[in-house]
Amino acid sequence: MEKPILGGVEAGGTKVVCVVGRGPDELLAEERIPTTTPAETLASVVDFFRATEAQHGRCTAFGIASFGPLDLDPRSPTWGCLRQTPKPGWERTDLVTPLRKAFGTPVAIDTDVNGAGLAEVLWGAGRGAGCLVYFTVGTGIGGGAIVNGEPLHGLSHPEMGHIRVPYYRGDETFKGTCPFHGDCVEGLASGSAILARWGTPAESLPADHPAWELLGFYLAHLCLSATMLFSPHIIVMGGGVMKSQPLLPAVRRWTQRLLAGYVQLSTLEGSLERYIVPPALGDRAGVLGALALAARAH
Amino acid sequence: MEKPILGGVEAGGTKVVCVVGRGPDELLAEERIPTTTPAETLASVVDFFRATEAQHGRCTAFGIASFGPLDLDPRSPTWGCLRQTPKPGWERTDLVTPLRKAFGTPVAIDTDVNGAGLAEVLWGAGRGAGCLVYFTVGTGIGGGAIVNGEPLHGLSHPEMGHIRVPYYRGDETFKGTCPFHGDCVEGLASGSAILARWGTPAESLPADHPAWELLGFYLAHLCLSATMLFSPHIIVMGGGVMKSQPLLPAVRRWTQRLLAGYVQLSTLEGSLERYIVPPALGDRAGVLGALALAARAH
Repeated sequence: MEKPILGGVEAGGTKVVCVVGRGPDELLAEERIPTTTPAETLASVVDFFRATEAQHGRCTAFGIASFGPLDLDPRSPTWGCLRQTPKPGWERTDLVTPLRKAFGTPVAIDTDVNGAGLAEVLWGAGRGAGCLVYFTVGTGIGGGAIVNGEPLHGLSHPEMGHIRVPYYRGDETFKGTCPFHGDCVEGLASGSAILARWGTPAESLPADHPAWELLGFYLAHLCLSATMLFSPHIIVMGGGVMKSQPLLPAVRRWTQRLLAGYVQLSTLEGSLERYIVPPALGDRAGVLGALALAARAH
Repeated sequence: MEKPILGGVEAGGTKVVCVVGRGPDELLAEERIPTTTPAETLASVVDFFRATEAQHGRCTAFGIASFGPLDLDPRSPTWGCLRQTPKPGWERTDLVTPLRKAFGTPVAIDTDVNGAGLAEVLWGAGRGAGCLVYFTVGTGIGGGAIVNGEPLHGLSHPEMGHIRVPYYRGDETFKGTCPFHGDCVEGLASGSAILARWGTPAESLPADHPAWELLGFYLAHLCLSATMLFSPHIIVMGGGVMKSQPLLPAVRRWTQRLLAGYVQLSTLEGSLERYIVPPALGDRAGVLGALALAARAH
């Protein structure tokens, strides 16, 4: 039996990536749409799927992996809408209804990080993992968790970047860039924080810059907290900032030091190379996350 | 149809509590056994259930809610055994086999906190919650999570007390009492830390003692981390230290301050009285946790 055709929408603050496909290795069409106004952007999304429908047939389900915060409470009348967001004009935007109205097929929605985590469990670095934590370190810092194949939700969705951790020695005067918390992990170690500290994006910092130890320290506290709270099988760290070569080894080194041998498991011994890993799906984790959500909805 | 008879074993460092019953309101027998050597203690446990079997019939399943760390990997040959523990003589003790051999019925095992959390989801403060986090603050600090009705595990089980958080202002000279990490939350805010700081147990500290603000601050960071990583529906805080009246309000106050309005949900508004709560099952959460595990095994 041929696999069903699925539609995926990765909604980001600057662009929306739409794909149609039967799975990660069978993509049939893809388009990048700039994120402008909600009305214009969502109309372009619907247009894309109408055009691909003519060519490939109707998608049996859609998945939306979006920036947040989102209302994901299934009992809420505003399920599938953005909550308060700093993105102008997008507050309370209903992301689900335009697709559902246009095509009449199921539409799933989740955070971009929960989507990416799900894709990594289905097709990537954490295939079959009972518990996977996915972090993204970019302009902001977010995290999602997949527990027994299900993206984790409760009252709302996780906001993992906003925990507080100790200051790196000598860094106490930096107040952090998070508009809500100042010195939460996002405020201390995100792309925005890097820009505020050193006036340059992560990719311009040389390999011997002290930034990597400092960032490794903060992000390791995130990994430590995830380890102690979830005991996950694997932690996947994606996002633009993580692409800088010196960072992942620094995160692993600091995490190892912070664990201090407490959890005696073979995966947590040595240099944590099997435990804290980059996304196997690379830059595709986001859009394949949307496809993974569609697969679940179907 | 009559409900099945279940056996519960709450295994603690100083005592083991065994119960037989059909549910929290239908307990048929109970006994407290001092924790001495593994052989003696586990023989007494089996003896108790033999005696109750004669009177009430055989238990259809057993649940063990134990101190840890435990091997809970179902593929491990040492599943159901204690791992390295400071409790003399108990390292690598097999908790499951004595009961299974004696009675031939299913035996479930989990951490005491996962058990207590499950009991609170089934019968207590978080009835039906999709995501509940249970903390215990006693000699040590532990935490468990119930996600979609299942106790959370991954590589191992959570060890929530061992995250690092910022120091309370002025407390930086206290090195903490955790033998592994020093100043993790357990090292800074457990009963052992209280004794080390003030030379007296929590219950002897007066209501106007500065301890409550300090402890509230540290435990609020635990609640903040749980909120940001899990987005739970409810956080339940049990354990001997939490019984001191001034503590829970201090934890709620600090958590509210740390959240800083970031997650805009009605449950997280105001004084968090519906969000951070004592166990509805009170001191029974532990032993009913064991019974809840038995109910799942059955």
